[in-house]
Amino acid sequence: MDKLREKVKEIIFGHDTKAGKLFDVILLWVILISVLIVILESIPSLHINYYRYFFYIEWIVTILFTIEYIIRVWSTKTPLRYIFSFWGIVDLLSILPTYLELINFGFHYLLAIRIFRLLRVFRILKLVRFNREAQKLLLALRGSGHKIGVFLMAVISIMVLLGTLMYVIEGGENGFTSIPQSIYWAVVTVTTVGFGDIVPQTVLGKFLSSIAMIMGYAIIAVPTGIITVELASKKSEDKVCEDCKHDNPDNANFCNQCGLKF
Amino acid sequence: MDKLREKVKEIIFGHDTKAGKLFDVILLWVILISVLIVILESIPSLHINYYRYFFYIEWIVTILFTIEYIIRVWSTKTPLRYIFSFWGIVDLLSILPTYLELINFGFHYLLAIRIFRLLRVFRILKLVRFNREAQKLLLALRGSGHKIGVFLMAVISIMVLLGTLMYVIEGGENGFTSIPQSIYWAVVTVTTVGFGDIVPQTVLGKFLSSIAMIMGYAIIAVPTGIITVELASKKSEDKVCEDCKHDNPDNANFCNQCGLKF
Amino acid sequence: MDKLREKVKEIIFGHDTKAGKLFDVILLWVILISVLIVILESIPSLHINYYRYFFYIEWIVTILFTIEYIIRVWSTKTPLRYIFSFWGIVDLLSILPTYLELINFGFHYLLAIRIFRLLRVFRILKLVRFNREAQKLLLALRGSGHKIGVFLMAVISIMVLLGTLMYVIEGGENGFTSIPQSIYWAVVTVTTVGFGDIVPQTVLGKFLSSIAMIMGYAIIAVPTGIITVELASKKSEDKVCEDCKHDNPDNANFCNQCGLKF
Amino acid sequence: MDKLREKVKEIIFGHDTKAGKLFDVILLWVILISVLIVILESIPSLHINYYRYFFYIEWIVTILFTIEYIIRVWSTKTPLRYIFSFWGIVDLLSILPTYLELINFGFHYLLAIRIFRLLRVFRILKLVRFNREAQKLLLALRGSGHKIGVFLMAVISIMVLLGTLMYVIEGGENGFTSIPQSIYWAVVTVTTVGFGDIVPQTVLGKFLSSIAMIMGYAIIAVPTGIITVELASKKSEDKVCEDCKHDNPDNANFCNQCGLKF
Repeated sequence: MDKLREKVKEIIFGHDTKAGKLFDVILLWVILISVLIVILESIPSLHINYYRYFFYIEWIVTILFTIEYIIRVWSTKTPLRYIFSFWGIVDLLSILPTYLELINFGFHYLLAIRIFRLLRVFRILKLVRFNREAQKLLLALRGSGHKIGVFLMAVISIMVLLGTLMYVIEGGENGFTSIPQSIYWAVVTVTTVGFGDIVPQTVLGKFLSSIAMIMGYAIIAVPTGIITVELASKKSEDKVCEDCKHDNPDNANFCNQCGLKF
Repeated sequence: MDKLREKVKEIIFGHDTKAGKLFDVILLWVILISVLIVILESIPSLHINYYRYFFYIEWIVTILFTIEYIIRVWSTKTPLRYIFSFWGIVDLLSILPTYLELINFGFHYLLAIRIFRLLRVFRILKLVRFNREAQKLLLALRGSGHKIGVFLMAVISIMVLLGTLMYVIEGGENGFTSIPQSIYWAVVTVTTVGFGDIVPQTVLGKFLSSIAMIMGYAIIAVPTGIITVELASKKSEDKVCEDCKHDNPDNANFCNQCGLKF
Repeated sequence: MDKLREKVKEIIFGHDTKAGKLFDVILLWVILISVLIVILESIPSLHINYYRYFFYIEWIVTILFTIEYIIRVWSTKTPLRYIFSFWGIVDLLSILPTYLELINFGFHYLLAIRIFRLLRVFRILKLVRFNREAQKLLLALRGSGHKIGVFLMAVISIMVLLGTLMYVIEGGENGFTSIPQSIYWAVVTVTTVGFGDIVPQTVLGKFLSSIAMIMGYAIIAVPTGIITVELASKKSEDKVCEDCKHDNPDNANFCNQCGLKF
Repeated sequence: MDKLREKVKEIIFGHDTKAGKLFDVILLWVILISVLIVILESIPSLHINYYRYFFYIEWIVTILFTIEYIIRVWSTKTPLRYIFSFWGIVDLLSILPTYLELINFGFHYLLAIRIFRLLRVFRILKLVRFNREAQKLLLALRGSGHKIGVFLMAVISIMVLLGTLMYVIEGGENGFTSIPQSIYWAVVTVTTVGFGDIVPQTVLGKFLSSIAMIMGYAIIAVPTGIITVELASKKSEDKVCEDCKHDNPDNANFCNQCGLKF
């Protein structure tokens, strides 16, 4: 029994055995299909015509996920730790809404929560080649975390101050009905999104907006610079093979392309 | 006969002889004129008044392209390989719509497919000085392909999750009529395009949008950093002439500007 | 008395003693609450229902700030210098509007000036870990100040010229009612904000706008490049610990993470 | 006479003598005033009320510029070369519209051409400290000219193809009335401006737009990378003073801040 559990765990949680890889690929497809179903089901015309099919596929997927969830709980040695881990909660949230819908929970939009199944894709991707690159990027982001934090604080402060000023200058009749609303406008403007649902009408408001736009336009240079420098320093820590110019991690002893010894 | 074929091939496919270069230049102009005709013909007022001229020019260009296509098929030693190659299909698509229109194929918009003639410009440009730079850029893009892939996957996942959340929060009465529609809104917002045809109306929706906009605004720093680092590493592989500071490819033995030996 | 003053000064202005840190943390929270009150008070529905509570909290905060202000003036050796310093004026502006409202000053929007209390947060942050990163960023911005200045002058000139040209081309009937208005449109367009409240209607106007948009889109590369290069040169001046790869300032003698001697 | 001419030339064209610098500063202010007048005059309410003042100031400025122009032509040894040089034409265009208005030339908007006086500011700035930085930036832009050219060609081709596809997909009833109009929309979208005056209505159109937006959003990384790398290589050619870390041009023999010999 324990041996079986060990083996099942290897297949479900592991990514190195053949069976484990196959399991991952199948799971990936089931997840993508279930996400697609959630998306398509929300289209009124499709919902009306193909309700029955969505219903069947949804239940097949949910039952598959439920079986998977039970096996995961059973196969791990520390079930509680898994259940309350990030991935455990995501796994539970992937199946719960369908069951709650069954008992007529009322809040139909609950079903949309199933979209968070999409997150499960990232667990599977953790294993593949994308992983190393993703980790590098995350390292760079974390390495420049404080700088990015300072930048975000400065940008958000500018947005709050600008929003309040525009609330005073423009006032409710021009759409700037409250400070939160004006801050929302400031976010839309400084990030250069520019929906255009609220626009300044007064000369002073337009002048201030112009300055804010130019600032928002130029300020993006700062986080870009921060991350570029961080990525560059990560890159230079890599060992570049003299022979084939391939990029190896800094703890490599041989080039993983041409086998040259470092 | 074979010798003639060889010579014709050299002119049409080659870019090194004088005749080959002349052929390329003429072809470039014919392509640009034909693309311009497609564009201008779509303007209703011009279409009504100058229909006749468009018709004549279009047929002259099509016949020229047809002759070129036949000669290309004839002059190459492996006609089938050419016909089913990328450029072979582009060449065929450049002439086919005009003939199909002749037999009253019905679907008038088919004519717009002729715009893909524009792609033919890139075959000609393959030979000129732009080529080396273009190749460098493509190399940098390919070299950072995995990182860009990770980034795009993360961005698209954010868009899908954000879109679904907004669908739940805002609902159909505020324009978020389905999840695909909401994802479309999320793409418009996160990429900072901001058409403004759909905008959040609820307080929670505006708050969530603000976070998404700030993320979208800051997140662009990541691909920029990736490509900059990649381009920088490509650059440092170049040999810079000590004398005239000119930038030579890394396999150069002499500076291609001042002839200094490396 | 003088000793007490010294001690009080250390708590209020200093950030190194335990009491000083506690004071800073409490002040930080009071500031954030007071800013939140200003923002929430501006929402009409909240204003009507909870006016009384806003009133009480506002006065508690104002009295706390007033006491703080008086103590600051009293504890410093050069009161006038403090009063007319940047932070002294910010501190005064944080309390003045509430008192002016009391004597029925009339201009209700004056209250929104209280939002500048937010600036006080930055004085407190001056001491914490964010400070070093913020300083690095400011150094990089200052180091590239001339280049950024040249860039901004070029961009603003483009906006002025483009705006005037569009005023001539489009004219008042298409929303380009005056040159300042057209310049405002040019700012909105070149910074890629694109509200869409004013859009070109003529063919020539659309063509010119297209060129301006492509320019605005590509031109952002310039400040990004400037700041990246500046940040990179700042980074390379840092000492990177050989052992733990931690980043130390260039005057460090020991790694501040693992204690390695440089 | 020749000596006088020499002296006048030194004042007007030169920037090194005291009189030359004073002349530049006065000219700078006159230009800025004249540009401001052009801008303010276009505001209908100001135009009606202060027409007289604008008229007087305009004529004073024009006469001053005319005198300056005549002196420039007279003092230079090669008058024709000056007249047909870039700056000579800009100088002429600064005064011509006012005279043409006098003889009731009819086309009132001609007056807006006077805005090009703004360009004259750049001649004056040529001399000051901004000059070196501006030149560095221009060098970097020129150094990456081919790469930027390749990038722009690719982006414009994408816009043409995308515009044509959207014309076919959406059609005239959704605002995509002709291919040029659709290309204009593609420019607005890919550059992330997003006016929102034309938006896709069909599902396929929205899907294609989403891809175009993500591309446009990510593609900006390319020119940024190009210019950053170019600027970085320019920077590394500079000599950094070991003592005060000041940045000197690469042909410097002494640090221009602390005098350290290189």
